[in-house]
Amino acid sequence: MRLEAGCQLLFSAEAPSPLLLMLRPRSGEGQWVVREEYRLEPSVPMVEYTDSYGNLCQRLVTSEGRFLVYTAACVETADEIDVAPDAAYVPVELLPDGVVQFLLPSRYCQSDMLYDEAIAIVGDTEPGYAQVEAIRHWIHTQVKYQYGTSNSSTSAVDTAQSKIGVCRDFAHLGIALCRSLSIPARMVVGYLYELEPMDLHAWFEAFLSSPDGSTAEGRWYTFDATQPQPRGNRIAIAYGRDAADVALATQFGPLTLQEMRVWVKEG
Amino acid sequence: MRLEAGCQLLFSAEAPSPLLLMLRPRSGEGQWVVREEYRLEPSVPMVEYTDSYGNLCQRLVTSEGRFLVYTAACVETADEIDVAPDAAYVPVELLPDGVVQFLLPSRYCQSDMLYDEAIAIVGDTEPGYAQVEAIRHWIHTQVKYQYGTSNSSTSAVDTAQSKIGVCRDFAHLGIALCRSLSIPARMVVGYLYELEPMDLHAWFEAFLSSPDGSTAEGRWYTFDATQPQPRGNRIAIAYGRDAADVALATQFGPLTLQEMRVWVKEG
Amino acid sequence: MRLEAGCQLLFSAEAPSPLLLMLRPRSGEGQWVVREEYRLEPSVPMVEYTDSYGNLCQRLVTSEGRFLVYTAACVETADEIDVAPDAAYVPVELLPDGVVQFLLPSRYCQSDMLYDEAIAIVGDTEPGYAQVEAIRHWIHTQVKYQYGTSNSSTSAVDTAQSKIGVCRDFAHLGIALCRSLSIPARMVVGYLYELEPMDLHAWFEAFLSSPDGSTAEGRWYTFDATQPQPRGNRIAIAYGRDAADVALATQFGPLTLQEMRVWVKEG
Amino acid sequence: MRLEAGCQLLFSAEAPSPLLLMLRPRSGEGQWVVREEYRLEPSVPMVEYTDSYGNLCQRLVTSEGRFLVYTAACVETADEIDVAPDAAYVPVELLPDGVVQFLLPSRYCQSDMLYDEAIAIVGDTEPGYAQVEAIRHWIHTQVKYQYGTSNSSTSAVDTAQSKIGVCRDFAHLGIALCRSLSIPARMVVGYLYELEPMDLHAWFEAFLSSPDGSTAEGRWYTFDATQPQPRGNRIAIAYGRDAADVALATQFGPLTLQEMRVWVKEG
Repeated sequence: MRLEAGCQLLFSAEAPSPLLLMLRPRSGEGQWVVREEYRLEPSVPMVEYTDSYGNLCQRLVTSEGRFLVYTAACVETADEIDVAPDAAYVPVELLPDGVVQFLLPSRYCQSDMLYDEAIAIVGDTEPGYAQVEAIRHWIHTQVKYQYGTSNSSTSAVDTAQSKIGVCRDFAHLGIALCRSLSIPARMVVGYLYELEPMDLHAWFEAFLSSPDGSTAEGRWYTFDATQPQPRGNRIAIAYGRDAADVALATQFGPLTLQEMRVWVKEG
Repeated sequence: MRLEAGCQLLFSAEAPSPLLLMLRPRSGEGQWVVREEYRLEPSVPMVEYTDSYGNLCQRLVTSEGRFLVYTAACVETADEIDVAPDAAYVPVELLPDGVVQFLLPSRYCQSDMLYDEAIAIVGDTEPGYAQVEAIRHWIHTQVKYQYGTSNSSTSAVDTAQSKIGVCRDFAHLGIALCRSLSIPARMVVGYLYELEPMDLHAWFEAFLSSPDGSTAEGRWYTFDATQPQPRGNRIAIAYGRDAADVALATQFGPLTLQEMRVWVKEG
Repeated sequence: MRLEAGCQLLFSAEAPSPLLLMLRPRSGEGQWVVREEYRLEPSVPMVEYTDSYGNLCQRLVTSEGRFLVYTAACVETADEIDVAPDAAYVPVELLPDGVVQFLLPSRYCQSDMLYDEAIAIVGDTEPGYAQVEAIRHWIHTQVKYQYGTSNSSTSAVDTAQSKIGVCRDFAHLGIALCRSLSIPARMVVGYLYELEPMDLHAWFEAFLSSPDGSTAEGRWYTFDATQPQPRGNRIAIAYGRDAADVALATQFGPLTLQEMRVWVKEG
Repeated sequence: MRLEAGCQLLFSAEAPSPLLLMLRPRSGEGQWVVREEYRLEPSVPMVEYTDSYGNLCQRLVTSEGRFLVYTAACVETADEIDVAPDAAYVPVELLPDGVVQFLLPSRYCQSDMLYDEAIAIVGDTEPGYAQVEAIRHWIHTQVKYQYGTSNSSTSAVDTAQSKIGVCRDFAHLGIALCRSLSIPARMVVGYLYELEPMDLHAWFEAFLSSPDGSTAEGRWYTFDATQPQPRGNRIAIAYGRDAADVALATQFGPLTLQEMRVWVKEG
């Protein structure tokens, strides 16, 4: 489905403040950016670079006072995500070099501390897709989705205990549990069509073999513990090890986010 | 100035054909992509990757028959290019690592064969910006601009002899002469406002010291041997060693370009 | 000084086990690898790749039973590290693109949780080198160095509370405190001449302006909170955001480290 | 076989001269560097970086007068290269992103000018390994190997006409002919055991499907038109598009190579 998605951030700046943004989706394997817009009001100089995960990052210093960031994109997306119960665990020694880093613990995904929890969840499930699905399902049914119960310091270990959080916490927990079983997992932030309530969203991906279980080549699969069923029509904006890598806006000054508006509709 | 620029390629394909495109400008130091559009008719799957020069490359297989590529962008550009007569030669040992490759000969810029020509042109000009400007001026005045006099195999050595060519040949010759003097030079393809006749354009950049001649840090400067005067309002689409790196379309099948339309106007 | 340094790891493997190693120092700005050796007993196939921080990483699957990794290097090192009290804070908007990631919290350096501690330590010290030195000195005097008091899950937040740890914990705390003040900081693991007792070592680097305080260009400076005085004669093996990025050995199987020997002597 | 290989360059410098070297082999899929040495006499500061092909490049400024570069390595190599008559042509649209650049013409491999020659050589040979082998065999039998008949400006087009040259020319011609058939090909420089007479060597690699002809994944295969038979025991030092990318020494000053010694023996 072709989606029209966008996000508008209204800041109030007491003084000019450095701002890092990650708000430009890239065309890639699963999505094609047909049209795109990126506007600042007032207009200030802005540079863009690619981080080590391939995300486009925008750097600027805001003006003082009211500062608006407006981004919109029209993107071709897949209506369905691949569901592949037979996709197998890829042994560490066969992982592509660039995937190995997604086995390691990170700020919000302390996989080194959640092995017991992971084992308890997957039981004797076959290594691979079925384990990740067991983890996803366990989070979906055991962790309560509720706004305002977590904050920017909440980690997977916290959520494993509190059993409450938002999409970001669900993703962190899924990632940490996968990694503790030596399954590479990464965070994705982006848009999801018909998300209720509409907002920017976060989910995770796990690296497993090809759908038929042959392990010669692996690939990333989408998992979303906030949803009861697999859902497509997603626009990925950024990939990383966890939220520390993919903050859509990182500010370094006296800047207050006054208003944020997100929209996704059929294009 | 804010520019609206775009390019439309109409192909006729006897059979589905692999096609590499390089038609998406990136935001960077000197330009900001405010809005952008990229459309295929009929729509086919397309993936995008970043090459080793940082250019965004699009890969696809065309459908059979009529195949249209439409791209358009609204870009903030600088009205003037920096002219810096005092910018000095940067000694090879002080060049950034990533710049060194632009000293080497390449397919169309056989700098290893043009040292004598370069010396004859620059005479006893001070090493640095003044040399590059002498080269640019020499090409502008000594090489005749004429369509249809060169082709996709024409190199800087050819143009140094024939003294006739188009923007691409002018750029190749400028690059090769600079490199022969150990000045890093690279090719740029993109749009130029009010180019006559309107078309995609090619020019070159040379790496020199900061404008005041301090050599601690260097940067790229724009040179265009097709123009009598320095002109800004350019949109760079791709950078590379020469045209072999920055072909806007590379085809691998029975594909005929039927029509090409390019536009650049004030936005 | 020319140093002969090396490290030997003796493993016992119940079964062939994937192993990631990061034990090959690279030649770079501050050190030159004159001679180097890397041996496995028994010999098994091994591949090497470069991670996103530029570290050389070795991947292999051990044999079963006794498995020995032997590495040694002869490296030219600087006798002194640069001490630059006038090096200034580099504003976020002037940092090189690749340095920005070292401002973000990471697994063991939760800088988002240590801002109050950092402010308490640096007081009204001038932003820049003096702040980092205040942090380093505070750790050196307030945190007790003791083996066996921390483990592979211990983070900067833990150490800020326990005030006890080893070199890795000292580095994590220094990094997290720097980042909380928007000073980029990264972890280094390697060898230090005359370290007592001899072992692999960890320290940190902070990114500050040139020594004279001009902020046009910044660079990394070495800090080591385990030492009373600045000391040179270091060999860096790997750089990263924290220990999660620079584990010298990461194992994925029934592998036991039986013995580890480290040596550094004048070469 | 374990090989001890090395190379010693003796320069005479009228003045300190920038020098780029590419003399450090890297461990990789097909070779493992067990031991290595890199020495300058007199010792001067040297930095190392990785180019866009993954080669380690050393940069330095020589001292005046006698200047010696000594490198030696002990490397595990494969005794045989893979010969895979069933490896198939990989369609352009299935090539990995990083391989696409090896389809393009380059300084010494003007593949855009050799299509007719290539077609004449391969005739109706099945696309893939058999074509590359036909090209290799044609060069081996039709081009005369003779020192002193070519120079640093000689290109594949030159060699296709003169039918005489050295290893570098043989490789350039092989590469250009492959690329003209849309088979990615790249240059390799390195050591070959029992090469007669002993020298640094150059050969080429072509990218084809897996040995059984399945095209899902491709890989590089070694070809050497200077040899009558496939031979292993090679140490690759650098990879690139052609000799312009992989010059083992590139000098920028009044530097004369006085003597060069190369050795490869069983280790």
